[in-house]
Amino acid sequence: MLDLQPLLCPRSIAVVGASTSPDKVGGVPIRLLAELGYVGRVFPVNPGADTVQGLRAWRSIDAIGEPVDLAIVAVPAPGAPDVMAQLGQAGTRAAIVFTSGFAEVEGGEALQQALTAQARAHGVQLLGPNCLGAMNLRERMYATFSPIPLTGVPPVGEVGLVSQSGAFGAYAFALAREARLGLSHWVTTGNEGGVQVADVIEWLAHDPQTRVILAYMEGAHDGLRLRRALAAARDAGKPVVIAKVGTTAAGASAAQSHTASLAGEDAVYQAVFDEYGVHRAHTLEAFFRLGYTLARGSRPRQWASRSGLPADAVAPVAIVTVSGGVGIMMADSAETLGLPLPPMPAAAAQTLRTAIPFASTANPIDVTGQVVAQPQVFVDALANVARCGQYGSVAAFLAGGANAPRLWAALQGTVTELAADASAAPLLVSGVMDDDKRAWLEARGCLVFREPAHTMEAVAALARAAAMEAATAATGAAAGGTLAQPTTPMALATPVPAGASALSEAEAMACLAEAGVPVAPHAVARDADEAVRIAESLGFPVAVKLCSRHVLHKSDIGGVVLGLRDAEAVRAAFARVSEAASGATDAAGRPVPFEGAIVARMVRGWGEIMVGVRRDPVFGLVALAGIGGTAVEIFRQMAFGLAPLSRERARAMLEQSRAAALCTGHRGHPALDLDAVADVLVNVSRVADALGERLDTLEINPFIVGAEGLVAADAVITLR
Amino acid sequence: MLDLQPLLCPRSIAVVGASTSPDKVGGVPIRLLAELGYVGRVFPVNPGADTVQGLRAWRSIDAIGEPVDLAIVAVPAPGAPDVMAQLGQAGTRAAIVFTSGFAEVEGGEALQQALTAQARAHGVQLLGPNCLGAMNLRERMYATFSPIPLTGVPPVGEVGLVSQSGAFGAYAFALAREARLGLSHWVTTGNEGGVQVADVIEWLAHDPQTRVILAYMEGAHDGLRLRRALAAARDAGKPVVIAKVGTTAAGASAAQSHTASLAGEDAVYQAVFDEYGVHRAHTLEAFFRLGYTLARGSRPRQWASRSGLPADAVAPVAIVTVSGGVGIMMADSAETLGLPLPPMPAAAAQTLRTAIPFASTANPIDVTGQVVAQPQVFVDALANVARCGQYGSVAAFLAGGANAPRLWAALQGTVTELAADASAAPLLVSGVMDDDKRAWLEARGCLVFREPAHTMEAVAALARAAAMEAATAATGAAAGGTLAQPTTPMALATPVPAGASALSEAEAMACLAEAGVPVAPHAVARDADEAVRIAESLGFPVAVKLCSRHVLHKSDIGGVVLGLRDAEAVRAAFARVSEAASGATDAAGRPVPFEGAIVARMVRGWGEIMVGVRRDPVFGLVALAGIGGTAVEIFRQMAFGLAPLSRERARAMLEQSRAAALCTGHRGHPALDLDAVADVLVNVSRVADALGERLDTLEINPFIVGAEGLVAADAVITLR
Repeated sequence: MLDLQPLLCPRSIAVVGASTSPDKVGGVPIRLLAELGYVGRVFPVNPGADTVQGLRAWRSIDAIGEPVDLAIVAVPAPGAPDVMAQLGQAGTRAAIVFTSGFAEVEGGEALQQALTAQARAHGVQLLGPNCLGAMNLRERMYATFSPIPLTGVPPVGEVGLVSQSGAFGAYAFALAREARLGLSHWVTTGNEGGVQVADVIEWLAHDPQTRVILAYMEGAHDGLRLRRALAAARDAGKPVVIAKVGTTAAGASAAQSHTASLAGEDAVYQAVFDEYGVHRAHTLEAFFRLGYTLARGSRPRQWASRSGLPADAVAPVAIVTVSGGVGIMMADSAETLGLPLPPMPAAAAQTLRTAIPFASTANPIDVTGQVVAQPQVFVDALANVARCGQYGSVAAFLAGGANAPRLWAALQGTVTELAADASAAPLLVSGVMDDDKRAWLEARGCLVFREPAHTMEAVAALARAAAMEAATAATGAAAGGTLAQPTTPMALATPVPAGASALSEAEAMACLAEAGVPVAPHAVARDADEAVRIAESLGFPVAVKLCSRHVLHKSDIGGVVLGLRDAEAVRAAFARVSEAASGATDAAGRPVPFEGAIVARMVRGWGEIMVGVRRDPVFGLVALAGIGGTAVEIFRQMAFGLAPLSRERARAMLEQSRAAALCTGHRGHPALDLDAVADVLVNVSRVADALGERLDTLEINPFIVGAEGLVAADAVITLR
Repeated sequence: MLDLQPLLCPRSIAVVGASTSPDKVGGVPIRLLAELGYVGRVFPVNPGADTVQGLRAWRSIDAIGEPVDLAIVAVPAPGAPDVMAQLGQAGTRAAIVFTSGFAEVEGGEALQQALTAQARAHGVQLLGPNCLGAMNLRERMYATFSPIPLTGVPPVGEVGLVSQSGAFGAYAFALAREARLGLSHWVTTGNEGGVQVADVIEWLAHDPQTRVILAYMEGAHDGLRLRRALAAARDAGKPVVIAKVGTTAAGASAAQSHTASLAGEDAVYQAVFDEYGVHRAHTLEAFFRLGYTLARGSRPRQWASRSGLPADAVAPVAIVTVSGGVGIMMADSAETLGLPLPPMPAAAAQTLRTAIPFASTANPIDVTGQVVAQPQVFVDALANVARCGQYGSVAAFLAGGANAPRLWAALQGTVTELAADASAAPLLVSGVMDDDKRAWLEARGCLVFREPAHTMEAVAALARAAAMEAATAATGAAAGGTLAQPTTPMALATPVPAGASALSEAEAMACLAEAGVPVAPHAVARDADEAVRIAESLGFPVAVKLCSRHVLHKSDIGGVVLGLRDAEAVRAAFARVSEAASGATDAAGRPVPFEGAIVARMVRGWGEIMVGVRRDPVFGLVALAGIGGTAVEIFRQMAFGLAPLSRERARAMLEQSRAAALCTGHRGHPALDLDAVADVLVNVSRVADALGERLDTLEINPFIVGAEGLVAADAVITLR
């Protein structure tokens, strides 16, 4: 882990390129640090001035005469590498480079390389270039050239915010300020010549002042670093909210031209986020709302009192509403999010119905417009469901009721009581209300939203965070899944030929079989007689397929004959396949030597799935799975996971791609053990992992789904 | 169409059950009408008071001595039917019944029937019971018992709002007031004993004061009425926004217990909404935002200047941003919504790059943080793209820039110029800004949002509205699709047996063939010799299938044998099928007479689709289509449309279900003419339409997709 202490908690700051004008890039930080009361020492460096904005200035970095923790660099781009060298020689520990004109512009790559080389050579931690700086709100450390903190800062709080984009970061700062969302740190990483978003996430995961991490990113340079960071946050029980943009082709193309990042494939990012329980936001509004929810919201009650719940369990919720119509909208939203709505306990229902005969005591619980006449009945219903022990959370829709004096008085009484009762389920409220009432409720642990559907989304997010925390607690802080407990890589006995660009199907099948992946019974025949002997020993029907490292798309050249029912057919097929081989050429145009044909038993089943592993430029080996055949091409519902897979992830992939539907009693076929099916996927991913750097792609298509489980009927492995 | 003039524009109002207490249900409307300045006359009716809240009161309805347009009824439920009779006898034209305790409570059905019977018998138009009343804002007609207008009313405007739920309506009123969204009418329909949401939509479609219609509904009682209303709005060029709740099982079950409505199947509602171009909202926030967007937003420029564009065309949009990061988010959103992002014209790009070398001149157009130093460059870029003629709309992200004095001044200049230029594309802005700035922009036709993604959603909604308007204009106001130009129902020559609960496969095939639906060549054989003769004349391979009106699931009893390649196999298959029939019984347990077997040529193709028609309780005959086989069961991606289908709807169904993918060069197969494929679906739906009230279900599964287009390989038609 990078130690960001000198960068984010510096005891002293030099500003290189300090400007006497408080509005210039080199002047704003001087002004901010002075006006907002930074506690450490500030050294303006300016070769032509004795003082800068009232502070004594130094002619050069050397002149300071002592090493500083952090230097802010606001000099023109061409001079930045030299400045970095001087900083290093003076013992500076970290530097923030504001200057733009590096990798984000055409032809700026070389200059950025020179800058980062100097930083590395001298052991200076580099933030930027082309970034808007960093802040530590508790220490009033505003190392940015954005003037925005001058007009006000958010409260000091427990949300750490990191953004690759400076403008996004500045806007996020303004929104946090407006929403009074408390921040601990604010960091923009720009071109990421040194410190990456992932490094900041990892550091915040260990920072005692931060409880929730919000990150904006366009793409990761280093997938492993990001995974390590997300694992650290998960192990620390800190929810991470990520706005990863460039999810579509148009967005990704825009991202390429922005802070010089690689957008990568969105589905792979999603798989990584799923693996580490990241909360994903697709809009600015959702980004902040998730931050507010996770920082301020109490976890659903079950999670606090029970342990050992499955990670995908969800918390039952009670909807209490003054409008039946809005209640139905909330119920729709709950169902979409998978939140159960168990009915109100009988005694509470009876109490409510006695007071308001027309009330609906199912869930949603609708006290109707009678709330105006009988506010106490409404708040009693709230208190009853919060305390009955059946619900993890209570979501109430008040319409404009909080501003009605009698209802507000009753609500205050009930909320005060519930806040003092540790066994009561937390309350989330929606409706319109005055700001002071909203603040009063929030101070007592109540989340407040305008949109009723957002209370349900908040419950779902809090349940997800609680499930992750429970899972981490159950397996101990050191668990850390794939990264902290790496699977011992499998050693393959099947020799992998040096220099080859692919394995033959027989070699690929051997690797899979070795890893415990069921493959169709088969053998390689050198001539037609051998083919017939093999077929007769396997039993008909069989397939005859060209077996060569040099021909990947064997069916394209007529090298595959399926469904052979007798010796005669096998003999004819062998002749066809060997003839097909005689005309074939490899990728370099050379004739392909005929080395034999695979004779394989035709495996029967009721469906096909497709499983593969490929190399993602950011995250390395990524496994994918989905229903095979026409469906996979038309519906394109593939699920992804990092290889090697965990059984949990493999199961999740089967569910997400709906391949699980083929395994669970589809059309009256026997149900398979989904854990066993998942283990087959795990073993496929272990083969890919064992091939390691040599592996380019692995594809099993089709994997026949039948009474014996999955059986690989074909396999292609290409090498690098 | 119901004439709602007496209800929504009454010249006089009687309040039956008028209360001397201005806070009671019967007192609030008296107070509202007086305080808010209703222009017509008000007659409080109270048997025990000479005056009510300072107004002269009448002892009875009779005592008024002249007919009134509208009566508000606030008497206990048991007395309501008698009051309705008295109103009718006195010549009252419309009545709003506030009282609850009717169909929405257990055992209240009979009382509601008594009430509605009286209303019908006397020709009184009934709104309610169990409703919150109605308002006409222009005439200050507040016929509600909600006290909410006392604390302020929204501006008079062009949005008509109708809600089945009273509490939803009241909350919507409060939100409209807060957002300063101008309303024309506000109507709540409650239990819909008389006037339904659909009736109000239809009336508002003809109301010159209304331009946009917002509706909340839990379910329609009368699908045809809703369709007629939506057609009227479409023909009038008025966008309709509907929040139809109860979309999930949980929501639907909650809706059942709310204003006594039938939620119906959501996918069918969605098909109806798609057919009439309804904008659907799933949250309160989106409901209002769509209302704001459609009421205030200028249509994309192309739509104003071009005609004859296809209805599914979308308007290209320019994204201009001060933050690259937010620009990427907006590009993601645009792509998800199908909005094209063509690049900036070269000249404008050159101008921008000259001023700001680091600016990105692709689309999104990123002027970067330089906007602070060079605000004029930013607004010039806005003006250039708005005027270049390549974009329908311009979406700008300003972050907090509107509050920066220099940028605001520059922006004001540009917006003023663009507002005066009818050829400029309209501007939509996102960011944070003071309320007065927001109002200033809105007054000049600029929509303003906080969330950048909402500008893209607004562009999409406006493009959709414009496309619908253009289509309506192109086909003339009288077009009206399915309803206004009903297809002449087909007359089927194939006799439909009276009393039968199904057609035999041969009869079903005959109906389809008659309508021009290609069916597999076939004939009915009475004995094995005839089966062989038929097979030989059709050509092998063939299928032999039991042909009976009494056996629907013929393959379940062994009544289907496929893939027969010679006479011998046909003979054996005929024997098996006739034996299967001999053991079969019909639904009543009676032995099934053997009437022969269908011999049909096996049709070859590369895929299967499934097409059906079934009876929806609300909307009648509904067609559905999707990919057949395993895929349809696992992915359940069926698309729906009202029968008889239009070719446009049938094409949309092929796209939505992804069945079109099988027809457009799938896996190298030849591409089919999608219009021809759509016409086959149309013809299937016409068969169902021709069977009319007799039809229960029609299903063609599989429809083989092959080089000759679609061919029905099996058909089941059940009757009522």
